[in-house]
Amino acid sequence: MAAAAPPPPPTPTPNPPTDLPQSDSATPFSLTLFSRIRLATPADVPHIHKLINQMAVFEKLTHICSATESGLSSTLFNSPPFQSFTVFLLEISHSPFFNPPPPSGSGFAPIDRIVSLELPLVDPEAESFKSGSNGAENEVVVAGFVLFFPNYSTFLAKPGFYVEDLFVRECYRRKGFGRMLLSAVAAQAVKLGYGRVEWVVLDWNVNAIKFYEKMGAKVLPEWRICRLTGDQLEAYRDAM
Amino acid sequence: MAAAAPPPPPTPTPNPPTDLPQSDSATPFSLTLFSRIRLATPADVPHIHKLINQMAVFEKLTHICSATESGLSSTLFNSPPFQSFTVFLLEISHSPFFNPPPPSGSGFAPIDRIVSLELPLVDPEAESFKSGSNGAENEVVVAGFVLFFPNYSTFLAKPGFYVEDLFVRECYRRKGFGRMLLSAVAAQAVKLGYGRVEWVVLDWNVNAIKFYEKMGAKVLPEWRICRLTGDQLEAYRDAM
Repeated sequence: MAAAAPPPPPTPTPNPPTDLPQSDSATPFSLTLFSRIRLATPADVPHIHKLINQMAVFEKLTHICSATESGLSSTLFNSPPFQSFTVFLLEISHSPFFNPPPPSGSGFAPIDRIVSLELPLVDPEAESFKSGSNGAENEVVVAGFVLFFPNYSTFLAKPGFYVEDLFVRECYRRKGFGRMLLSAVAAQAVKLGYGRVEWVVLDWNVNAIKFYEKMGAKVLPEWRICRLTGDQLEAYRDAM
Repeated sequence: MAAAAPPPPPTPTPNPPTDLPQSDSATPFSLTLFSRIRLATPADVPHIHKLINQMAVFEKLTHICSATESGLSSTLFNSPPFQSFTVFLLEISHSPFFNPPPPSGSGFAPIDRIVSLELPLVDPEAESFKSGSNGAENEVVVAGFVLFFPNYSTFLAKPGFYVEDLFVRECYRRKGFGRMLLSAVAAQAVKLGYGRVEWVVLDWNVNAIKFYEKMGAKVLPEWRICRLTGDQLEAYRDAM
């Protein structure tokens, strides 16, 4: 059988519009992303583990990262959300999310936001961060997380939240997702009547400090963290 | 009735021994103190509230201290010990403690220590810090507290403890009680298989930093605390 005649070459465009993605793949890039923040579940541990490892690489702290999937599984999800260690997961899709109702008692309905991009976005790790949470018909990827837990202010006699980690995968950065995750924690704190949200930042990370200050946070200049860990902590086994 | 003859004046001692307390009261000072660390209960809230107020005065932070007894009562003691906000109380007595068995399931037996003093100690606030926990026959006072709660290290995939407050009333300072309270938290962390104990210190408090370093802690120089509170936090009420 003779090969079908090739289609005529496209009419050359002298000045192609710059606000449209150029793609030679069958699926055109979308400039609209659908994002969702939801409570993580035990089924998300493999993704959380990979995100923690990426965070350790980013912070050049792989030598102190010993997290395993089983370690995460046995220490997270032992309490109802917000009462202890809690993870919000950021998911991204090219089509709208179908949000199932939140599990009874969790008190947290997923938060959906539509994000418009200026340039098309390629996620080179889409396959390994694929999330099964949106039904088979939709391609959903996990793009980031925030892990937080209650802390306490004696001066306020009120709980607050402490944000231990906030991480967004590289290709999704500078698009407002970090702010979205942190805002979700702050909104939940207000909803629960809590007094504070706190976290830490490296003093040389001027961009992060500016970003947090824009969000309304104050950086406390005088306080230093003291940490007792490893053998120095182990020495207290029989101290009392 | 004639007044009883006054006792003869004491024989003057040219060189009174300096290691014995001089007292003209009927009860001689004791150079031995019995101390006990136990879990606080809701009945201890009035004492905890007074200790928090003293701490605010000590830290010159009374303007940000709005803790009330009812605020403390409604936010502490809502979870089993160690699973959330937990208070160890330091009690002092001049006679040995009678330790009742710990409440079932608390997993924490009170810790007793005998402390020898070099000089007699007067507690000017003994009356207002009297504790009812040792039976009517013994005078027991509340001398300090430590408030702590679980935190989480993603890199270790393990919980730890965060020490929010450590406070010992003035007349009981420099006698090892602060170390005793912090050691009790560290020992409990080891017992539970936790990875870290953390707290914060003011960078100009050189004595405290030396003390913590002697206890095995490292001070992390680069991290700064970010805090979102008050109106800035309230602004997130409808953010999501």
